[in-house]
Amino acid sequence: MTILAVGTIAYDSVETPAGTSNEQLGGSGVYFSLSASYFSNVTLMGVIGKDFKGSDISLLKSHKIDTSGIKTSNGNTFRWKANYNDNINNAITLETQLNVLKNFDPEVNVEQSNSEYLFLANIDPKLQNKVLHSMSHTLKFSALDTMDFWINNDIAGLKNIISQVDTLIINESEAKQITDEPNLSKAAIALSGMGPQIIIIKLGEYGVSLFASGFKFIIPAFPIENIVDPTGAGDSFAGGFMGYLHTCPDISENALRNAVVCGNVMASFTVEDFGTKKIRSLSMKEILQRFNQFWELTKFERDFIKIK
Amino acid sequence: MTILAVGTIAYDSVETPAGTSNEQLGGSGVYFSLSASYFSNVTLMGVIGKDFKGSDISLLKSHKIDTSGIKTSNGNTFRWKANYNDNINNAITLETQLNVLKNFDPEVNVEQSNSEYLFLANIDPKLQNKVLHSMSHTLKFSALDTMDFWINNDIAGLKNIISQVDTLIINESEAKQITDEPNLSKAAIALSGMGPQIIIIKLGEYGVSLFASGFKFIIPAFPIENIVDPTGAGDSFAGGFMGYLHTCPDISENALRNAVVCGNVMASFTVEDFGTKKIRSLSMKEILQRFNQFWELTKFERDFIKIK
Repeated sequence: MTILAVGTIAYDSVETPAGTSNEQLGGSGVYFSLSASYFSNVTLMGVIGKDFKGSDISLLKSHKIDTSGIKTSNGNTFRWKANYNDNINNAITLETQLNVLKNFDPEVNVEQSNSEYLFLANIDPKLQNKVLHSMSHTLKFSALDTMDFWINNDIAGLKNIISQVDTLIINESEAKQITDEPNLSKAAIALSGMGPQIIIIKLGEYGVSLFASGFKFIIPAFPIENIVDPTGAGDSFAGGFMGYLHTCPDISENALRNAVVCGNVMASFTVEDFGTKKIRSLSMKEILQRFNQFWELTKFERDFIKIK
Repeated sequence: MTILAVGTIAYDSVETPAGTSNEQLGGSGVYFSLSASYFSNVTLMGVIGKDFKGSDISLLKSHKIDTSGIKTSNGNTFRWKANYNDNINNAITLETQLNVLKNFDPEVNVEQSNSEYLFLANIDPKLQNKVLHSMSHTLKFSALDTMDFWINNDIAGLKNIISQVDTLIINESEAKQITDEPNLSKAAIALSGMGPQIIIIKLGEYGVSLFASGFKFIIPAFPIENIVDPTGAGDSFAGGFMGYLHTCPDISENALRNAVVCGNVMASFTVEDFGTKKIRSLSMKEILQRFNQFWELTKFERDFIKIK
């Protein structure tokens, strides 16, 4: 079985204090799939233009990503241009060319509809909704990511899809914006009141927090001295999270905790180089090593004290 | 043996979204001492005015804090007035009345000079320097806190005292300001190049990170739904950290990790009510309980994966 993911496939141009990267493979669906591919099989749904490079399809295929759900439309691939020079943690969008994304209409075939895991990466909530409703009763776990654009431009559509998924994965600023709640814990409670049983709030350079009905799990980010390009960190998180979870016998508390750590680890790799450069070329040994380094970074003894 | 601490003793007036608190006991030395007192004996050095309330001295004494190092001078006690309405994580200082603090000259007696642990809470670096140089060769561990005021007004004096202590405890924004380094890990490396073997950077609502030569330790904050007043959280952190460390047989890596967690726990209590209200009235049972809750919040299995 594979994870079905729908999201954007893009050519990104970004400028960061570390340099520039032009017209490089990106998009929420791509980062998610590459990251998840280290753990599980992934089927990616999305749309590309006639300009999409064969070498980029080959890259996805080399990660055993099923690309049969990728449509090719007349026109150019979606493009995004951004600048991180003022603040490495906050992209300023300079230009968005929707191109073929404008008329994208995902169609889920029978095999895809029988997937047990579904990830709705950032894309129009209407498309996320269509894909979710195309799934069969075999669906076991669904998760959703989004971005501030949809909060500002289709909050009704967004809330509708949020109400139907098991897990919402969202940035801190977006969580606070949707709920109008400046306190993180309260924002999580409010989001959980909208439907999802699990709320994952991404804290960027400060880590990530998971709020479930029976427990909370909060961890810092893995410290990276040279953040080259944070693009795709959130989608890489989601990929590590879902990819790992999919390998677990069930969606237990322990599985969710480890899945969050895996997501965290994958995101920490992504930011170390431009675009997908790092996340496309990892070994399982490197991933395991960083998982263990993260364990060392956060461990402490439960045994408390011999107090005075 | 006790921990010797020098710092401010104040009457604070603060306004937060949760309400107001007028002319209440505060100051870096007070928060530190109250917090540390749950773990160790503390001798507090500082200055108060003739207006200082007997009930506040009694409060310190009820925590077995040695107040013999507190001088009473002619004039009023130091006062600080601030507003957190715009941002609960960032105080806007409205008024500072130095009063008796202006001419404070700490004098360390022989017994105090033989303390093994010294905490230099936020106060004029010249006074911190004087106290440090008054210590005898029995001193085993010294730590320093400061604030942006001294970075802006006496950076030379501040760097001088930083170069002489074992541990620097500092806010994230201050760490980045001193080093002119926006990346947290790099800021820690730069600070450690100034002298201290251990750099602790407080991340406010995002937790705390410790950088030592052989290891790093980063943890999130304990999530608090209703932050009433963040005043004193940093000093309470330092109190829990030093107070716990002082109970350990040696300053090992494990001791430092647990000390950071204790500091974190104590800070999480402080913000739950105005001023010292919460930190003055805890039980060891509550502290242990929250330590264990923090363990649950951050724990995950080291055993990784049965990957595809």
